[in-house]
Amino acid sequence: MIAGMQQVNVGIVGLGNVGSGTLTLLAENAAQIALKLGFPLRVTAVCSRSVEAKKLPEGLGPVHRTTDWREIVSHPEVDIVAELVGGTSVAAEIINGAIEHKKSVVTANKELMASCGSEIWDRAIRAGINLAMEASVAGGIPIHAVLREGISGDRVVALYGILNGTSNYILTEMEKRGAPLDEVLAEAHRLGYAEADPSADIDGFDARSKLAILAALAFGEKITPSDIFVEGIRRISPMDFQYAHKLGHTIRLICAARQTSDGLILSVRPALIGLETIIAGVQGAYNAVWVKGRYGQDTFYYGRGAGPLPTGVAVVSDLMRVAREIRYGHPERVSPFAHERLGEYKPRSVTSEKCAYYLRFRVDDRPGIIAALAGILAEQHISLEAVLQLPSETKSSLPFVITVEPTCEHTIREAVQKMSHLDFLREPPLALPMEPPL
Amino acid sequence: MIAGMQQVNVGIVGLGNVGSGTLTLLAENAAQIALKLGFPLRVTAVCSRSVEAKKLPEGLGPVHRTTDWREIVSHPEVDIVAELVGGTSVAAEIINGAIEHKKSVVTANKELMASCGSEIWDRAIRAGINLAMEASVAGGIPIHAVLREGISGDRVVALYGILNGTSNYILTEMEKRGAPLDEVLAEAHRLGYAEADPSADIDGFDARSKLAILAALAFGEKITPSDIFVEGIRRISPMDFQYAHKLGHTIRLICAARQTSDGLILSVRPALIGLETIIAGVQGAYNAVWVKGRYGQDTFYYGRGAGPLPTGVAVVSDLMRVAREIRYGHPERVSPFAHERLGEYKPRSVTSEKCAYYLRFRVDDRPGIIAALAGILAEQHISLEAVLQLPSETKSSLPFVITVEPTCEHTIREAVQKMSHLDFLREPPLALPMEPPL
Repeated sequence: MIAGMQQVNVGIVGLGNVGSGTLTLLAENAAQIALKLGFPLRVTAVCSRSVEAKKLPEGLGPVHRTTDWREIVSHPEVDIVAELVGGTSVAAEIINGAIEHKKSVVTANKELMASCGSEIWDRAIRAGINLAMEASVAGGIPIHAVLREGISGDRVVALYGILNGTSNYILTEMEKRGAPLDEVLAEAHRLGYAEADPSADIDGFDARSKLAILAALAFGEKITPSDIFVEGIRRISPMDFQYAHKLGHTIRLICAARQTSDGLILSVRPALIGLETIIAGVQGAYNAVWVKGRYGQDTFYYGRGAGPLPTGVAVVSDLMRVAREIRYGHPERVSPFAHERLGEYKPRSVTSEKCAYYLRFRVDDRPGIIAALAGILAEQHISLEAVLQLPSETKSSLPFVITVEPTCEHTIREAVQKMSHLDFLREPPLALPMEPPL
Repeated sequence: MIAGMQQVNVGIVGLGNVGSGTLTLLAENAAQIALKLGFPLRVTAVCSRSVEAKKLPEGLGPVHRTTDWREIVSHPEVDIVAELVGGTSVAAEIINGAIEHKKSVVTANKELMASCGSEIWDRAIRAGINLAMEASVAGGIPIHAVLREGISGDRVVALYGILNGTSNYILTEMEKRGAPLDEVLAEAHRLGYAEADPSADIDGFDARSKLAILAALAFGEKITPSDIFVEGIRRISPMDFQYAHKLGHTIRLICAARQTSDGLILSVRPALIGLETIIAGVQGAYNAVWVKGRYGQDTFYYGRGAGPLPTGVAVVSDLMRVAREIRYGHPERVSPFAHERLGEYKPRSVTSEKCAYYLRFRVDDRPGIIAALAGILAEQHISLEAVLQLPSETKSSLPFVITVEPTCEHTIREAVQKMSHLDFLREPPLALPMEPPL
């Protein structure tokens, strides 16, 4: 096993949070990594705009430092390039550059893999190099390994996830403390959980990119983020949690990919989830993924969504796998995107399946409100289940909730559209699915 | 990629529950498996004592049937042998026979891998064949893939599990319905959850074998089942759930492997777990594994513990991985057992760390009982936290509970030992740790 003792060399591009976490792990855990692999994994080169000012962890040995990523992707002593810069423009150049130089690639880049993952994989396969992307979704949860290997023999029927830690932190803080979204968001920003521009987190776009990647892995389809229905958490208020609790539920931003007779339904949206479910127990900045398999039935995975070290674990685990494959052979020959080639792929964001709905209104108090709303529901043949009203914080704007019996989404949307013209409404109705099939 | 189109051939030994589930999956899911792999996986031979009477699923193509496993392990058209017979004697012969014939092996055999896994792995590595054992622990949870690949870059600090579905089913039914253990066990037997001899499930030995395998994978040590402290659920009664609930807890059979300053603590034992924890939400025949990593922190995995199809998914996923490795190279060169070789390995089942305890008594009602028990606790310098007494079902035997402040296990055992001589006790005290570090 003399060949096995030869080291595999890693070049890291990007020394931000994830890059630093990765270096820490590779330095501190070097001995155990070498024992597990049967050979050492060495960092031979790093690249960052401010590389000279960076303090690298002790124990790495001599490392070439550069501000030019081209030096990393063409370096003769780099076998694997870890692309940890994020974004889609330079990152794509780095990955393509590495592939051209026949270097294997490990990436943590969700945006890029969600938008061009299929093309990048095809290029990597043609070049005969290896590509790994565990860190691109739910940093702390090894969900790629699970889908790629652990349950690869199953057929996934549905996959649900809480994939954005920031919005889950905000929702669970609103729930616990009754604080409004803006206040919790400001705090999340102070704690470093939220970006300067919170839109990607709050409006569901970050979660949507992650769902696009996971759904591609789970269903073997090429999934474009813009195919996915997205609704963020901006309109959720602490009062919605009060009503949801009254109904035995809580609210979470649920990413869902589900095979139905209508096709593959893809959505990111807040939904009411039973308080007793395991997924309702996902608190704070944690992420979770729930997979339903035709044969293996339910499996559930939970862990940190982000953070330098949890994401570093994903990067290092990928580096180890790719290093092993470089040493002993490349087992990956089929793209995880679009391997199904099942003919024309029809993603859907609206299902004809029925589901109960929670409709929350804010109105000017006056007679005839329930009659008007119930009239529109009746016109749409929607059966009213319950009307709830909790004591209101303000006199001027009266909140209340109507729940309706299982109805298809199209019908609910039409009803909400009609209601939006009613002059007593202070804002458009908020419609959330209740216990969507999980 | 013409080489890639060549099929890999599987021989299956054992057509019981798991073998039949595996065949069903390989037949029904053949097209998707071939798309994922880039080549077909074909069943070419099967072996079972009653092989002639077996109806094989449609779509498998021609399959050689035999009652002699030697034909499978030496068959020129078998690349991978799936050992699905269970037990330790014939199973060991089958696996060793396959290795001698340079066939790769997939096994679902927890007993064998727990007792001789290390030796079998060494033999497989010397022979240059591949060995996979995902189905040997928690059939429906891909925990081997997680430890081997998904979080391989982390250092596991602790691993906890609910690894025996039958005992978890019994505990959660006792909890829900207040039924005694014997009654629920009889029912589990009728439902096919429990074996004719329930000892392996009820007394914790099945869970212990699984913990031995998972701890070996997590810590890279060779772990012998007999090194693991084991206490089953026989002494738990519905009344213990009533007391536990009163204390905000439930009771689960917890498998634990934890690195401490004393060494690696290994135990299988019932414990009080906070009702709000995710692990308390594991109901019925489900299994769960909780891993704490030094870098990646908490991750949690949940799924079916057994069943022909969930376990079949694990077998088929292993077959796919091994087939890929046969086609494109063998990445596995280091045993998952004992790769650490960290010198003399010291497993411990008693820790010097402190933990609160739940002590439940059944006594003949008379004056001076609390004084006598409190006296013994005081002698041992154990601080009493609370005394609870719920209305009793019987007059003759009065149950009550004492909880004590964090104390080390050794001290509790001594106290329980001293108490056992008190003549008012109807049975020895039941001592359960409360919220052991999770």
